[in-house]
Amino acid sequence: MPIKEGERVYLRLEDGKNYLLKVEKGKFFSTHLGNIYFDHIIGKEFGEEVYTSQGKKVYLLQPGIVENIFHMKRRTQIVYPKDLGFILLMLDIKENDRVIDVGLGSGAMCGALARLVGERGKVYAYEKREEFIAIARHNLSQWGWEDRVEIKQRDIKDGFEEKDVDALFLDVPNPWDYLKECWRALKGGGRLAIVSPTAGQVMEVLRGLEALPFEDTEVWENLFRQYKTNPSAFRPVDRMVAHTTYMIFSRKVSPPDWEVDLKET
Amino acid sequence: MPIKEGERVYLRLEDGKNYLLKVEKGKFFSTHLGNIYFDHIIGKEFGEEVYTSQGKKVYLLQPGIVENIFHMKRRTQIVYPKDLGFILLMLDIKENDRVIDVGLGSGAMCGALARLVGERGKVYAYEKREEFIAIARHNLSQWGWEDRVEIKQRDIKDGFEEKDVDALFLDVPNPWDYLKECWRALKGGGRLAIVSPTAGQVMEVLRGLEALPFEDTEVWENLFRQYKTNPSAFRPVDRMVAHTTYMIFSRKVSPPDWEVDLKET
Amino acid sequence: MPIKEGERVYLRLEDGKNYLLKVEKGKFFSTHLGNIYFDHIIGKEFGEEVYTSQGKKVYLLQPGIVENIFHMKRRTQIVYPKDLGFILLMLDIKENDRVIDVGLGSGAMCGALARLVGERGKVYAYEKREEFIAIARHNLSQWGWEDRVEIKQRDIKDGFEEKDVDALFLDVPNPWDYLKECWRALKGGGRLAIVSPTAGQVMEVLRGLEALPFEDTEVWENLFRQYKTNPSAFRPVDRMVAHTTYMIFSRKVSPPDWEVDLKET
Amino acid sequence: MPIKEGERVYLRLEDGKNYLLKVEKGKFFSTHLGNIYFDHIIGKEFGEEVYTSQGKKVYLLQPGIVENIFHMKRRTQIVYPKDLGFILLMLDIKENDRVIDVGLGSGAMCGALARLVGERGKVYAYEKREEFIAIARHNLSQWGWEDRVEIKQRDIKDGFEEKDVDALFLDVPNPWDYLKECWRALKGGGRLAIVSPTAGQVMEVLRGLEALPFEDTEVWENLFRQYKTNPSAFRPVDRMVAHTTYMIFSRKVSPPDWEVDLKET
Repeated sequence: MPIKEGERVYLRLEDGKNYLLKVEKGKFFSTHLGNIYFDHIIGKEFGEEVYTSQGKKVYLLQPGIVENIFHMKRRTQIVYPKDLGFILLMLDIKENDRVIDVGLGSGAMCGALARLVGERGKVYAYEKREEFIAIARHNLSQWGWEDRVEIKQRDIKDGFEEKDVDALFLDVPNPWDYLKECWRALKGGGRLAIVSPTAGQVMEVLRGLEALPFEDTEVWENLFRQYKTNPSAFRPVDRMVAHTTYMIFSRKVSPPDWEVDLKET
Repeated sequence: MPIKEGERVYLRLEDGKNYLLKVEKGKFFSTHLGNIYFDHIIGKEFGEEVYTSQGKKVYLLQPGIVENIFHMKRRTQIVYPKDLGFILLMLDIKENDRVIDVGLGSGAMCGALARLVGERGKVYAYEKREEFIAIARHNLSQWGWEDRVEIKQRDIKDGFEEKDVDALFLDVPNPWDYLKECWRALKGGGRLAIVSPTAGQVMEVLRGLEALPFEDTEVWENLFRQYKTNPSAFRPVDRMVAHTTYMIFSRKVSPPDWEVDLKET
Repeated sequence: MPIKEGERVYLRLEDGKNYLLKVEKGKFFSTHLGNIYFDHIIGKEFGEEVYTSQGKKVYLLQPGIVENIFHMKRRTQIVYPKDLGFILLMLDIKENDRVIDVGLGSGAMCGALARLVGERGKVYAYEKREEFIAIARHNLSQWGWEDRVEIKQRDIKDGFEEKDVDALFLDVPNPWDYLKECWRALKGGGRLAIVSPTAGQVMEVLRGLEALPFEDTEVWENLFRQYKTNPSAFRPVDRMVAHTTYMIFSRKVSPPDWEVDLKET
Repeated sequence: MPIKEGERVYLRLEDGKNYLLKVEKGKFFSTHLGNIYFDHIIGKEFGEEVYTSQGKKVYLLQPGIVENIFHMKRRTQIVYPKDLGFILLMLDIKENDRVIDVGLGSGAMCGALARLVGERGKVYAYEKREEFIAIARHNLSQWGWEDRVEIKQRDIKDGFEEKDVDALFLDVPNPWDYLKECWRALKGGGRLAIVSPTAGQVMEVLRGLEALPFEDTEVWENLFRQYKTNPSAFRPVDRMVAHTTYMIFSRKVSPPDWEVDLKET
């Protein structure tokens, strides 16, 4: 299918530099290797190439979730692809799921969740700060997922409005303050993921989870290392990301006597 | 919704030991902490608990993709969850995608792909060895994804029967021998992921990709480290997985003159 | 120089299994690959081979610090070679240094320090528990370093008997309780290394160091990964050590007003 | 002992920036936080402080091996402290050892070796390139180890002039070409360490070692990760070194028939 006006295209230059742009008839985009004219792009197929005004090759690629996240408008630290894939798997996100996303931020995790829950699933995204809601809404609409997301400008210390959600993702500085609210919102066996960058935060969360009916708690971190792609000098790159976040996973259980205690608080 | 006969349940004992079983009326399952009677389970909700004949607590949890993979029937090395989430993200697998999975093995990656492509997507799974096809079919039917998968007992040296697929996952000992076939099967800009455990294999693949119209090639590996969850002695576990596989990612591009060359071979 | 009776030899069998033994005339040692007769060894050169009673090859190698540590008598967790080399470097241990070693344990670190300080250097080793002192003394005498070590069965809460030491290695469960004593014992600019396995311990030590005249504080951990040595299938091993300890390094400084405050406590 | 004119001092500013300078009477050194006058430093003790012309604190510390390496004059990639400590340990370098260092470069490894072999030990350093010899000589004389090092401007393809050395460190782009020469120079059981940054180089070395009487071959790499030292936000730093080199270790053995074969070549 040929590329149309208004479509978003991931442009990759010969030197690896790349851009994610909306194609606009009659306009052009300036790069260090010359101008790229959108009229050259309209009608081409993905995978094909155009040339800059300096004759440099530009590949036309369809943006996917990873390119979208790296090129999105943002004002916050985002959840990195290296962590994102693992969290989505551990939260077992799938078609039709109802999921809560706390700490919407710029919307990266929210978009990833929305994509996976499908048309009949739903993401409830909580965010206190108005300016982030605007950015996240912009990003979600770019990706086409805004219908699957319900954004709520609320402080979660008043609890969640949903019950029996399949999964809950919590990305706030003080997650231990909301563990009871998470427990109440999850379905039996529902999955919780919390991201925290410091060891002290993780310790505090672990103390909180121990005191509540959560089971199967795991804490993980990961190191992703990229390699140089020259086959005759195959080796890791020189520098890498050392840390993004610790990831805590747990599941709600429902012992007979707990419901009562938690209702009272 | 109460647990019904025939449903698959992830049972988690007090000591962390766990089982993935199909509930069968009138039967029981023996563990080192006593018998678990399925009749106690039927009618319970997920998240609730039953007790073994020795009075030990057993949590009833819904199995998800990670539990399914770790408990599935297998005769091959599987793709680990630590790699799986990242590969699915880098391949940009989503609703309605048409994807090729080469080296079906026990079906772990195939199941993960089927889950994500949704009802209107399709996974074409190639596998030469009959015994693996039987195991994979069993696993896929357990998970409920068999309708989304078309299994082909064929040697891929004869090429793929599909064209314009969105993504292709290649897990064979000699991936460099099939790169042209991969290029032909992918759509423009389509995504390729290859897993290879040894450095020599990666070097050979990189040589092959360089010689073909593939762009945006990346090689990654990851180290996932788990932590002990005792909050007053928070620290990494003693031992971890050191290596599963290198992961190679690339995208098909279509320079004007290449189609011809590749057709001739 | 030929191997003599009484000498310690590192024996390496064909299958990689190895032993560190003292050569005793007329005796033999039993292995899963047959007996090794010491009389065959006496008079051979290091690097040469003998054969077991089953005709299996055994290489005769001189034991070094790494072999000594892995084969020593022990009752405690030891400092691993992967950490040891880095700590010795960061503590800048060299000929003629005077060094304090707290938490002698089985004597691995003490032996490594003794080796480096030379004949005119000294290691002061503190250990409360009598049973460890016996083991450490045994190990140090095996390695020939006992003259360079002064073992003190004392609780360090009463302070150290030395002043102006070049470096201090602290391996106790509650290092934060002794930081003032460390400061007093070190020379100006002297180097301190502390090993602690849990994050909570490190945080407590960092709080303590901040409150005292220490500068240049660094915290490190390391992951060492071994590779399979088959050149046609070069790849990392399957599993590795995930964690031994965090390592904290700092240096004493002497602001004009501090000496007074510390004396008063 | 008070700091004297001509002595080398490691100066550490309040903001962590640091310099390694020779104290010169009547002169000063300019920094972004003001001038440091050497006359203020002469007569002070290590660990004490002086102030810049802007009133900023400067700690006076004795430089050790790590500071020397990071601040030395260099024109080459150096062996990093993270690798250095481990290599010195695995090579079992100690007093009185005779060691060959190939690929002198700027002299970092050579200096570390010289320090450990003591007054009666010796380091034979081979380097073809005259300009590196000059730099290395400068660095070695700064550290005071020039007497323990014999520098040879020779191509090692003609073999080594030494026999029966305890250890050999090989840091050249094509180590596989010199393995026979290494075998000839080492004593029985002598230790070899080779550093190579790419996987292909390691594979080539492993092939070479397999064909010669070397035993106990190991390949390692390490990842060192630093932590932020703020105790209330304890966490790894954001970025880290991903790769410096693979490290290959092996030991010479002497089967009865090999000496002959090797002599003939």
